[in-house]
Amino acid sequence: MRLKAKSLKLSAGRPVAILHSDTARALGLHVDDRAKIKTERAKIIVLIDTVVGGFIGKNEIALSEEIVKSLGIRAGKFVDIDPAPARQSIHYIYEKLKGLSLEKRKIFAIIQDIGDNALSESEIAYFISAMYTRGMSSQEIADLTHAMVETGSKLNLKQKIIADKHSIGGIPNNRTTPLVVSICTSAGLTMPKTSSRAITSAAGTADVIEVIAPVEFRIDKMKKIVNKVGGCMVWGGALGLAPADDKIIQVERLISLDPEAQLIASILAKKLAVGSTHILLDIPFGKSAKVERVSALKLASKFKEIAKILKLNLQIILTDGSQPIGNGVGPVLELRDIISILRRDKNAPKDLENKAIMLSGRILEITDRAKKLQGEILAREILNSGKAFKKFNEIIRAQGGNLDNLNKKLMPAKFSCNILAEKNSKIKTIENKKIAALARRAGAPADKAAGIYLYKHLDEEVKKGDKLLTVYSETKDKLNEAIEFYKFVKPIIF
Amino acid sequence: MRLKAKSLKLSAGRPVAILHSDTARALGLHVDDRAKIKTERAKIIVLIDTVVGGFIGKNEIALSEEIVKSLGIRAGKFVDIDPAPARQSIHYIYEKLKGLSLEKRKIFAIIQDIGDNALSESEIAYFISAMYTRGMSSQEIADLTHAMVETGSKLNLKQKIIADKHSIGGIPNNRTTPLVVSICTSAGLTMPKTSSRAITSAAGTADVIEVIAPVEFRIDKMKKIVNKVGGCMVWGGALGLAPADDKIIQVERLISLDPEAQLIASILAKKLAVGSTHILLDIPFGKSAKVERVSALKLASKFKEIAKILKLNLQIILTDGSQPIGNGVGPVLELRDIISILRRDKNAPKDLENKAIMLSGRILEITDRAKKLQGEILAREILNSGKAFKKFNEIIRAQGGNLDNLNKKLMPAKFSCNILAEKNSKIKTIENKKIAALARRAGAPADKAAGIYLYKHLDEEVKKGDKLLTVYSETKDKLNEAIEFYKFVKPIIF
Repeated sequence: MRLKAKSLKLSAGRPVAILHSDTARALGLHVDDRAKIKTERAKIIVLIDTVVGGFIGKNEIALSEEIVKSLGIRAGKFVDIDPAPARQSIHYIYEKLKGLSLEKRKIFAIIQDIGDNALSESEIAYFISAMYTRGMSSQEIADLTHAMVETGSKLNLKQKIIADKHSIGGIPNNRTTPLVVSICTSAGLTMPKTSSRAITSAAGTADVIEVIAPVEFRIDKMKKIVNKVGGCMVWGGALGLAPADDKIIQVERLISLDPEAQLIASILAKKLAVGSTHILLDIPFGKSAKVERVSALKLASKFKEIAKILKLNLQIILTDGSQPIGNGVGPVLELRDIISILRRDKNAPKDLENKAIMLSGRILEITDRAKKLQGEILAREILNSGKAFKKFNEIIRAQGGNLDNLNKKLMPAKFSCNILAEKNSKIKTIENKKIAALARRAGAPADKAAGIYLYKHLDEEVKKGDKLLTVYSETKDKLNEAIEFYKFVKPIIF
Repeated sequence: MRLKAKSLKLSAGRPVAILHSDTARALGLHVDDRAKIKTERAKIIVLIDTVVGGFIGKNEIALSEEIVKSLGIRAGKFVDIDPAPARQSIHYIYEKLKGLSLEKRKIFAIIQDIGDNALSESEIAYFISAMYTRGMSSQEIADLTHAMVETGSKLNLKQKIIADKHSIGGIPNNRTTPLVVSICTSAGLTMPKTSSRAITSAAGTADVIEVIAPVEFRIDKMKKIVNKVGGCMVWGGALGLAPADDKIIQVERLISLDPEAQLIASILAKKLAVGSTHILLDIPFGKSAKVERVSALKLASKFKEIAKILKLNLQIILTDGSQPIGNGVGPVLELRDIISILRRDKNAPKDLENKAIMLSGRILEITDRAKKLQGEILAREILNSGKAFKKFNEIIRAQGGNLDNLNKKLMPAKFSCNILAEKNSKIKTIENKKIAALARRAGAPADKAAGIYLYKHLDEEVKKGDKLLTVYSETKDKLNEAIEFYKFVKPIIF
């Protein structure tokens, strides 16, 4: 049936089309059914709401902003609507819940339907539960990864070697990406780096870079940036890479569930979609990290198995995840650390610098830009020479940002409070999750200049009255709330 | 914040409130967040959509029909809206997915939140998956049952003995309820029977009774009916009994998953909510029934365990589920069978009559209306005397229906086609699911007079040219589609 599109500027969190109830009946559609909407150029599967009389005519269809954006349609244009076909993929999800293993075509059907919006969030929740409770074989995970890549956009660069790095996260700051990308692209490597925004942390790389440059691009623009300056630091969410993955993550967040299969496929799919050939994966482990040592080793071996099936050169490095890396926690405060390292400030955080050099060195070695054991030396030369800072600046400019008025941009939030040591002692524990939660209480990542600055690391001696950390907030209320939170959870034990 | 309610007559399948985006921001609410809406008398948790400018003002809130109905509010009235509090129950669902067992207070928190609409359908899907993949102990199922009852309405009758019957379903027709209720209430028992509509079958008891009487009542009206005539045959969905159960079932249907824990709790909760003290549970078993013999025995023993914890007098009867019981399949066609038995027609289906007598007899015995082994005799007397038919008529009238113009009401759909035996043989198999699916293709239960009429039973001799069944449809298209379907699935093998 052909209907006239009407925009209500309504955002519903999912594609919703509103029909007159008579029109819905004529189409055999009920409230909450799924239907397919087509224009000449695009199609999308939507959820049906209905109205009785009133503000939508029988020959009209009101489209939520999610649909308007996806179809690129203007009000007054006509669209075709039909009931969505039955989805066999539901049955495959049911099979997985029962404990069967899924062959490739079934995994593709599920992922295709998720990407096409043909499965509801509840149906995706069943799929996530199935992966979590029943587990997936390496072959299934490899198929899942392939399916995510093939049902999304790809970057299609021409380079033979494309390098990438990834950390499974969980460690506050640990903001090595901007440094590694600047160093490795200075050495001539291509690094089309996509990053996430914070989910449970105080900042993601995308949040940090956004302080000085745009990070949301369409894939053709990303390609231009990478072709021009060799690399980028952009948000992965707007590119259409592995769209099913984004939808799965959205449903996972409701319950903080992250099945291993999905964790692995999600990471590898985003890398494959940009054409990465050489990947360095950082798995920080430790008591308050995402994984402890034994799980880290298991996860690494699973990653290795799957990379082999996918014919990817994947190197894994297990790193110390026992404490935050760098001093700042929050977008602006983390960017301060990065800039201070790039411009070779004396008081720049050494732990972050050393980790970035080590990761860069490994990437330069596996991509044959440096001989074995020579990678770190080359990386440090590039950093010391100022080339990395110059490249960083180039990338920021290519993304439409700049480093003008840097001091102002790097100014922390206006309200602050120092937390002091109450006795002479030694730092015994710094809990990663509590530090991240503290920075979030202070306002990060929404308030970009909010967060915390750490002065001490594990095993350091402290004297009574020494500064342990400073909390920065944009309002007095948030500052007070953060301080109360600090007292309650005690993230630092000494 | 206090906002002016606006009705768009919009049905969204879930309670959706639409705010101006500035208003949402002021409340700290984002698209898809949950918020609590209150009037002086009622409250409900809703999902937030937003609009930019245009048809909703900053001091207005548009409410979907689901909210308007639940709050009983008129447009122009004011409501209070606040962000919904954090839901600890999500964490308990996560624990169950991990495989932990849940203590009573955690199960109550989950069920309370589901009943209050504070958990999304995706979150309910996680709970269903957890029950399905991890299983639940008898104690957990008993707690689940209690939680469902306590978070809903109750009937609160004064009688000491309240009888009920239930079949787990899966057998076409098998419409014993109207007969059992008429017989047992004739003997003085109280039977406040609630029934379902068809989900995957061709008719539920509610669909059948609706041919001659209303079946949707509020609980106070149901109470009046039962107090007047001793029993009722109403739809369970409008009464507010165990509301969390209805929501769980809605999400289960997406994937046709029915975890044992939920199956048991769902049945027992509806019975407890109407105050049932003596329950007869019919578990038909067989190759094309819901369960085969071994599973039926297991299920029966699980039911027994839980009934013991709940201190319920539950009797279980395993019956032959190898074929449909009765001749008609579809609301009108099943009602024909019932009426023919009640008025003692010679050609009334004996299998249905005998099963109804047997079930009635058991109920009369366990409630001490009849001595051991005397129940069936009493039941048959009541049926033969015409008392049961009289009582049936009373109940129908109490529900606002009548048996006037019965021949017209019992007329099957206008298009029909006989399916004949192609050879001399014996009926070897009649597949329950395929028979139900065939009647649905013909139009049942939406077209009340559509369905099929069966002439033969298992092991009966047939001669070439004998009628096997008649298909009835309201349109030629549906009739043809049903006949094609018959040829394709072959529900009867001989």
